[in-house]
Amino acid sequence: MMGDELAAILADNLRGYRKKLRLSQEDLAEHADLHRTYIGTIERCEQLITIGSLAKLANGLKIDPSLLLVRESYKSFRPK
Amino acid sequence: MMGDELAAILADNLRGYRKKLRLSQEDLAEHADLHRTYIGTIERCEQLITIGSLAKLANGLKIDPSLLLVRESYKSFRPK
Repeated sequence: MMGDELAAILADNLRGYRKKLRLSQEDLAEHADLHRTYIGTIERCEQLITIGSLAKLANGLKIDPSLLLVRESYKSFRPK
Repeated sequence: MMGDELAAILADNLRGYRKKLRLSQEDLAEHADLHRTYIGTIERCEQLITIGSLAKLANGLKIDPSLLLVRESYKSFRPK
Protein backbone atom coordinates (compact mmCIF):
# COMPACT_ATOMS: atom_id res chain seq x y z
CA MET A 1 0.00 0.00 0.00
CA MET A 2 1.30 3.46 -0.86
CA GLY A 3 1.12 6.51 1.40
CA ASP A 4 -1.47 8.13 -0.89
CA GLU A 5 -3.74 5.12 -0.56
CA LEU A 6 -3.41 5.13 3.23
CA ALA A 7 -4.15 8.88 3.27
CA ALA A 8 -7.33 8.19 1.27
CA ILE A 9 -8.43 5.48 3.74
CA LEU A 10 -7.80 7.91 6.62
CA ALA A 11 -9.69 10.74 4.89
CA ASP A 12 -12.68 8.50 4.22
CA ASN A 13 -12.75 7.23 7.82
CA LEU A 14 -12.28 10.68 9.32
CA ARG A 15 -15.28 12.04 7.44
CA GLY A 16 -17.28 8.88 8.15
CA TYR A 17 -16.74 8.85 11.93
CA ARG A 18 -17.21 12.62 12.12
CA LYS A 19 -20.57 12.48 10.34
CA LYS A 20 -21.79 9.53 12.44
CA LEU A 21 -20.97 11.56 15.55
CA ARG A 22 -22.72 14.58 13.99
CA LEU A 23 -19.62 16.72 14.45
CA SER A 24 -18.69 19.60 12.15
CA GLN A 25 -15.04 20.07 11.17
CA GLU A 26 -15.03 22.92 13.71
CA ASP A 27 -16.39 20.65 16.47
CA LEU A 28 -13.81 17.94 15.77
CA ALA A 29 -10.99 20.49 15.56
CA GLU A 30 -11.93 21.70 19.04
CA HIS A 31 -12.19 18.17 20.51
CA ALA A 32 -8.89 17.14 18.89
CA ASP A 33 -6.99 20.35 19.66
CA LEU A 34 -6.24 20.86 15.96
CA HIS A 35 -7.11 23.70 13.57
CA ARG A 36 -10.34 23.46 11.55
CA THR A 37 -8.59 24.09 8.25
CA TYR A 38 -6.17 21.25 9.08
CA ILE A 39 -9.12 18.80 9.44
CA GLY A 40 -10.28 19.95 6.00
CA THR A 41 -6.89 19.31 4.39
CA ILE A 42 -6.77 15.79 5.86
CA GLU A 43 -10.28 15.00 4.57
CA ARG A 44 -9.20 16.21 1.12
CA CYS A 45 -6.06 13.98 1.24
CA GLU A 46 -3.80 17.00 1.02
CA GLN A 47 -1.66 15.92 4.00
CA LEU A 48 0.43 12.93 5.05
CA ILE A 49 -0.11 13.57 8.76
CA THR A 50 2.11 12.35 11.59
CA ILE A 51 1.00 9.68 14.04
CA GLY A 52 0.95 12.48 16.63
CA SER A 53 -1.90 14.15 14.74
CA LEU A 54 -3.49 10.73 14.20
CA ALA A 55 -3.56 10.24 17.99
CA LYS A 56 -5.20 13.68 18.43
CA LEU A 57 -7.89 12.91 15.84
CA ALA A 58 -8.63 9.56 17.49
CA ASN A 59 -8.88 11.29 20.88
CA GLY A 60 -11.33 13.79 19.41
CA LEU A 61 -13.47 10.94 18.03
CA LYS A 62 -12.94 8.75 21.14
CA ILE A 63 -11.81 5.74 19.08
CA ASP A 64 -8.58 3.74 18.83
CA PRO A 65 -6.09 5.38 16.41
CA SER A 66 -5.58 2.13 14.46
CA LEU A 67 -9.26 2.18 13.40
CA LEU A 68 -8.64 5.31 11.33
CA LEU A 69 -6.32 3.24 9.09
CA VAL A 70 -8.65 0.25 8.62
CA ARG A 71 -10.51 0.64 5.32
CA GLU A 72 -14.13 1.79 5.88
CA SER A 73 -14.03 0.91 9.58
CA TYR A 74 -16.51 3.75 10.24
CA LYS A 75 -19.21 1.71 8.52
CA SER A 76 -19.47 -0.67 11.47
CA PHE A 77 -19.21 2.13 14.06
CA ARG A 78 -22.27 2.67 16.26
CA PRO A 79 -22.11 5.92 18.25
CA LYS A 80 -23.42 5.60 21.81
CA MET B 1 -4.00 8.39 23.81
CA MET B 2 -1.12 10.83 23.29
CA GLY B 3 1.23 10.87 20.30
CA ASP B 4 4.11 9.67 22.48
CA GLU B 5 2.12 6.64 23.58
CA LEU B 6 1.20 5.80 19.98
CA ALA B 7 4.87 6.20 18.97
CA ALA B 8 5.80 3.70 21.71
CA ILE B 9 3.21 1.18 20.48
CA LEU B 10 4.57 1.59 16.94
CA ALA B 11 8.19 1.21 18.09
CA ASP B 12 7.38 -1.96 20.02
CA ASN B 13 5.49 -3.48 17.07
CA LEU B 14 8.13 -2.50 14.54
CA ARG B 15 10.85 -4.27 16.50
CA GLY B 16 8.53 -7.22 17.22
CA TYR B 17 7.51 -7.86 13.60
CA ARG B 18 11.05 -7.26 12.37
CA LYS B 19 12.50 -9.84 14.80
CA LYS B 20 9.82 -12.43 13.98
CA LEU B 21 10.70 -12.02 10.30
CA ARG B 22 14.41 -12.28 11.22
CA LEU B 23 15.15 -8.98 9.51
CA SER B 24 17.92 -6.62 10.57
CA GLN B 25 17.26 -2.87 10.55
CA GLU B 26 19.32 -2.82 7.34
CA ASP B 27 17.13 -5.53 5.75
CA LEU B 28 13.91 -3.76 6.67
CA ALA B 29 15.26 -0.40 5.50
CA GLU B 30 15.95 -1.94 2.09
CA HIS B 31 12.51 -3.65 1.85
CA ALA B 32 10.75 -0.46 2.97
CA ASP B 33 12.83 1.97 0.87
CA LEU B 34 13.83 3.91 3.99
CA HIS B 35 17.22 4.64 5.54
CA ARG B 36 18.59 2.24 8.18
CA THR B 37 19.23 5.01 10.70
CA TYR B 38 15.61 6.15 10.27
CA ILE B 39 14.36 2.67 11.29
CA GLY B 40 16.54 2.98 14.41
CA THR B 41 15.10 6.37 15.37
CA ILE B 42 11.53 5.03 15.03
CA GLU B 43 12.35 2.00 17.22
CA ARG B 44 13.80 4.37 19.82
CA CYS B 45 10.62 6.55 19.71
CA GLU B 46 12.61 9.54 18.51
CA GLN B 47 10.21 10.27 15.64
CA LEU B 48 6.53 11.00 15.12
CA ILE B 49 6.51 9.57 11.60
CA THR B 50 4.00 10.37 8.86
CA ILE B 51 1.46 7.87 7.63
CA GLY B 52 3.48 7.83 4.38
CA SER B 53 6.42 6.29 6.25
CA LEU B 54 3.99 4.02 8.12
CA ALA B 55 2.76 2.69 4.76
CA LYS B 56 6.37 2.06 3.66
CA LEU B 57 7.20 0.17 6.87
CA ALA B 58 4.06 -1.97 6.50
CA ASN B 59 5.02 -2.72 2.88
CA GLY B 60 8.47 -3.78 4.03
CA LEU B 61 6.94 -6.13 6.61
CA LYS B 62 4.08 -7.21 4.27
CA ILE B 63 1.39 -6.44 6.84
CA ASP B 64 -1.54 -4.00 7.00
CA PRO B 65 -0.42 -0.52 8.22
CA SER B 66 -3.14 -0.42 10.91
CA LEU B 67 -1.56 -3.43 12.66
CA LEU B 68 1.51 -1.34 13.51
CA LEU B 69 -0.72 0.85 15.72
CA VAL B 70 -2.52 -1.99 17.56
CA ARG B 71 -0.79 -2.58 20.90
CA GLU B 72 1.44 -5.70 20.79
CA SER B 73 -0.18 -6.98 17.61
CA TYR B 74 3.15 -8.61 16.65
CA LYS B 75 2.63 -11.15 19.44
CA SER B 76 -0.09 -12.96 17.46
CA PHE B 77 1.84 -12.69 14.17
CA ARG B 78 2.95 -15.99 12.60
CA PRO B 79 5.41 -15.51 9.74
CA LYS B 80 4.83 -17.86 6.79
